[in-house]
Amino acid sequence: MQIAGNLLIGQKAVRGTNGLIRGLDAATGTALEPAFGGATRADLDAACELARSAFDIYREAPLEARARFLESIAQNILDLGDSLIERCVVESGLPRARVEGERGRTVGQLRLFAAVVRDGRFLGVRIDPAQPERKPLPRPDLRLRHIALGPVAVFGASNFPLAFSVVGGDTASALAAGCPVIVKAHSAHPGTSELVGLATQKAVRDCGMPEGTFSLLFDSGLEIGQALVGDRRIKAVGFTGSRAGGMALVNVAATRCEPIPVFAEMSSINPVLLFPTALKRRAEAIGEAFAGALVLGAGQFCTNPGLVLAVDGPDLDRFVAAASAALSATPAATMLTPGIRKAYEAAVGRAAQHAGVSVLVHGGEATTQHQGQAVLFSTTADAFRRHPELHEEIFGASSLVVRCPDMESMRDIVESLEGQLTTALHIDDADHADARTFLPVLERRAGRILANGFGTGVEVGHAMVHGGPYPATSDSRSTSVGSLAIHRFLRPVCYQDMPETLLPVELHQENPLELHRLIDGQPETRT
Amino acid sequence: MQIAGNLLIGQKAVRGTNGLIRGLDAATGTALEPAFGGATRADLDAACELARSAFDIYREAPLEARARFLESIAQNILDLGDSLIERCVVESGLPRARVEGERGRTVGQLRLFAAVVRDGRFLGVRIDPAQPERKPLPRPDLRLRHIALGPVAVFGASNFPLAFSVVGGDTASALAAGCPVIVKAHSAHPGTSELVGLATQKAVRDCGMPEGTFSLLFDSGLEIGQALVGDRRIKAVGFTGSRAGGMALVNVAATRCEPIPVFAEMSSINPVLLFPTALKRRAEAIGEAFAGALVLGAGQFCTNPGLVLAVDGPDLDRFVAAASAALSATPAATMLTPGIRKAYEAAVGRAAQHAGVSVLVHGGEATTQHQGQAVLFSTTADAFRRHPELHEEIFGASSLVVRCPDMESMRDIVESLEGQLTTALHIDDADHADARTFLPVLERRAGRILANGFGTGVEVGHAMVHGGPYPATSDSRSTSVGSLAIHRFLRPVCYQDMPETLLPVELHQENPLELHRLIDGQPETRT
Repeated sequence: MQIAGNLLIGQKAVRGTNGLIRGLDAATGTALEPAFGGATRADLDAACELARSAFDIYREAPLEARARFLESIAQNILDLGDSLIERCVVESGLPRARVEGERGRTVGQLRLFAAVVRDGRFLGVRIDPAQPERKPLPRPDLRLRHIALGPVAVFGASNFPLAFSVVGGDTASALAAGCPVIVKAHSAHPGTSELVGLATQKAVRDCGMPEGTFSLLFDSGLEIGQALVGDRRIKAVGFTGSRAGGMALVNVAATRCEPIPVFAEMSSINPVLLFPTALKRRAEAIGEAFAGALVLGAGQFCTNPGLVLAVDGPDLDRFVAAASAALSATPAATMLTPGIRKAYEAAVGRAAQHAGVSVLVHGGEATTQHQGQAVLFSTTADAFRRHPELHEEIFGASSLVVRCPDMESMRDIVESLEGQLTTALHIDDADHADARTFLPVLERRAGRILANGFGTGVEVGHAMVHGGPYPATSDSRSTSVGSLAIHRFLRPVCYQDMPETLLPVELHQENPLELHRLIDGQPETRT
Repeated sequence: MQIAGNLLIGQKAVRGTNGLIRGLDAATGTALEPAFGGATRADLDAACELARSAFDIYREAPLEARARFLESIAQNILDLGDSLIERCVVESGLPRARVEGERGRTVGQLRLFAAVVRDGRFLGVRIDPAQPERKPLPRPDLRLRHIALGPVAVFGASNFPLAFSVVGGDTASALAAGCPVIVKAHSAHPGTSELVGLATQKAVRDCGMPEGTFSLLFDSGLEIGQALVGDRRIKAVGFTGSRAGGMALVNVAATRCEPIPVFAEMSSINPVLLFPTALKRRAEAIGEAFAGALVLGAGQFCTNPGLVLAVDGPDLDRFVAAASAALSATPAATMLTPGIRKAYEAAVGRAAQHAGVSVLVHGGEATTQHQGQAVLFSTTADAFRRHPELHEEIFGASSLVVRCPDMESMRDIVESLEGQLTTALHIDDADHADARTFLPVLERRAGRILANGFGTGVEVGHAMVHGGPYPATSDSRSTSVGSLAIHRFLRPVCYQDMPETLLPVELHQENPLELHRLIDGQPETRT
């Protein structure tokens, strides 16, 4: 499989003619070959029509076939070998070990969803058997299963060129649910995107899935992405990126003739709360670990610790000293794109100029114009409260320490925050009583609450929540990482008094698929 | 408990001073005593502040206590006895037997949700235990539960003054999920609303729930309802009513600083599909049953059969003849409000004037100005396709027979329809092959698919879906009837490496509540 600069529309490779997209060597800014052609409206229409026509077939593919399809994508990604890793390293500027790890996560989550599909629990089958003798009225036979929403548009993220991109978490969960997917590739890594797209296209073919199950489009501007969300054949959207970008898609989706759900994961500053005893006992260790989490991936994580809250005093000074020492010894790192680096420098510059903010330390200086320099700021609780602009995410290795006069003001600040993906508590046993008073607030504010760790490093499993109240996401009732993500793309359908021959097999009386089902609300007894 | 015309703000009865609302005797149009005072902005603020302060306490009330609270509401409604039934009959114009049946359904669904709460399955607990030895990185301990979204605004519907109103399905499912509820009463049945509100207020008090768990507001216009949805303390909305009303609330919710979900159940014409063999064998029986379903409750059901599709010919003529005979023998019935009757007459008048539509039969004539006369129209497939206005819901006992040239055009018409709550197939064994080709389309178009019945009469159980693609609802991923409705008001929260003493009890290692939990995605083995 070779990078050719093509769109993938079903089984075809198509040269886009609507402008050009160039991958860049993130470390040097050099344009990479080949150039990618942007999709036209006609390309978009072709992809949507294929997806529409694939939907009724793909969503009813047997669970085992669908699971094998997901596994086949995973294997094909591995089979791309070093060519994928190398291209991804060049396009993203991320270290090789991180990219290899991310490939493992991508493959792992495809396999996780294969297991979820085989298990069939996600179908949420419920049967309320008929009660023909019931008085005053007989009860009909009611059988419920969940079906896929329809074709899904997925927008690749810049910061996870594998795990949140062409077949990242959104695509894997949508395919698992039974939805065809049209990916709008992120222009920061077009070569990586085409390779993964080719691997997926091959799996569609090898597994005999309908052609429109997967397409990959490049967009030289915003037109095609917005038109994709506005297309009547698209029934849901997955997005990871900026708040402005996410809300633009939410608005397009809300003003369609038929509004559709958008699962946008957007903005989070991931507050880290340092409690007194933990700080007293371990200020240095926490400070060092914090610095490590802050600069990971050049700070380009959705779960990056962008805010530290603690009661002011000598123990917080020790934390700051340790974090500062670690940060100043950390070299600057290549950022994903010139645009992201520029936005980072601008935001950091604004913070440094802010009357209520002082700079605690800078990381190692940038040695190229493509690197971002870490920075740690500090402010007072009062200034933080008075300046909502300080609550905004800075995408990159920047964090703000808020020196609070007491625990009460710390809790008030947490209460004043917008919704978050994660929040981390650093606590010792003696802090538990204090921490307990924070939990109700934190539960209302975040999708994931951690003790003695940092939000970076999102485990892909069954109990993960990568979501949270707005603006962390546009829909707090779901997650974009982990097996629960499949439920974003499903809706319930009830069949009443339907002859068995017309029922989907998962609702047949004898339970031939041996699914987990609820009968009158209780688990079915296997005979 | 006496009707006094008051708002119920927490445990207080408050005289509203923002305009007056009058209940009417639906049959005569006579104004009923007492007048109700509309809520002011200050009343709204007081209710929201109480709900906010109740939330963290109410959502953590033990499952058993929450279940008993729901049962207590049910008992208090029964204890209102005949005063509730009588007032409801007068305000709604619905027959006494129907109102008694609806009370049974209301009480039944509160008890169903009590059982759902006790069962605890809705918490969706998932645990992925730590793997400290895992390479290359240890796995943290991850524990997930669902928590309530926050205070919920519920808008009572006109057409189910008990089962979809003050403590109808929306309120019962929100309270079950752990959400305080503020109800904006429907002004069509203020006395009924106050009585049920008083029953709920008493249950809050008797069960020791926080005061702000429930409030009831009356609104003399649209101001307070819209302000309620816009209030930052409200986190979700349940609504049943018109498309215009629902979309107005959706828009308010989407343009808040923090957008929130709105579960609006709005518009459906509930197509009835008559297949050839069934029609040949049972045209008369189906026609009679159809007429009965059409006039039930003066046609004022969300699931009213507003559209009939069949292949034209003598068998369809037999159906029409039987339905017409039954309808012309059916007396006109009192409608819920003068406004609804007026809108019905206007819509029926427009249809009768429509160049592509002819009137097949009228029901019995109205003997008062408050009654609605049933009517059956017919049109061609071609006219139906060319005139989207014929796809719009007429709220009342009106239906449209579309004479299709063949099965193919019937399927095309179904494909052209907007989203529906229900669709009904009338089929015999010999129709199964044809029906099978319709099912994929129907699944994409409707929340519930019935064989040989009509959508009216929505069973409250575990396998019910009362929902569907837009505009049937604003969110097809849920239902507003049945136990699945609880999931609308929940969001997942993950706890990572949290000391047990800080974990909610449902996530404790020993599973003291004996909940159904998934460990690494598989059911926990009880020891």
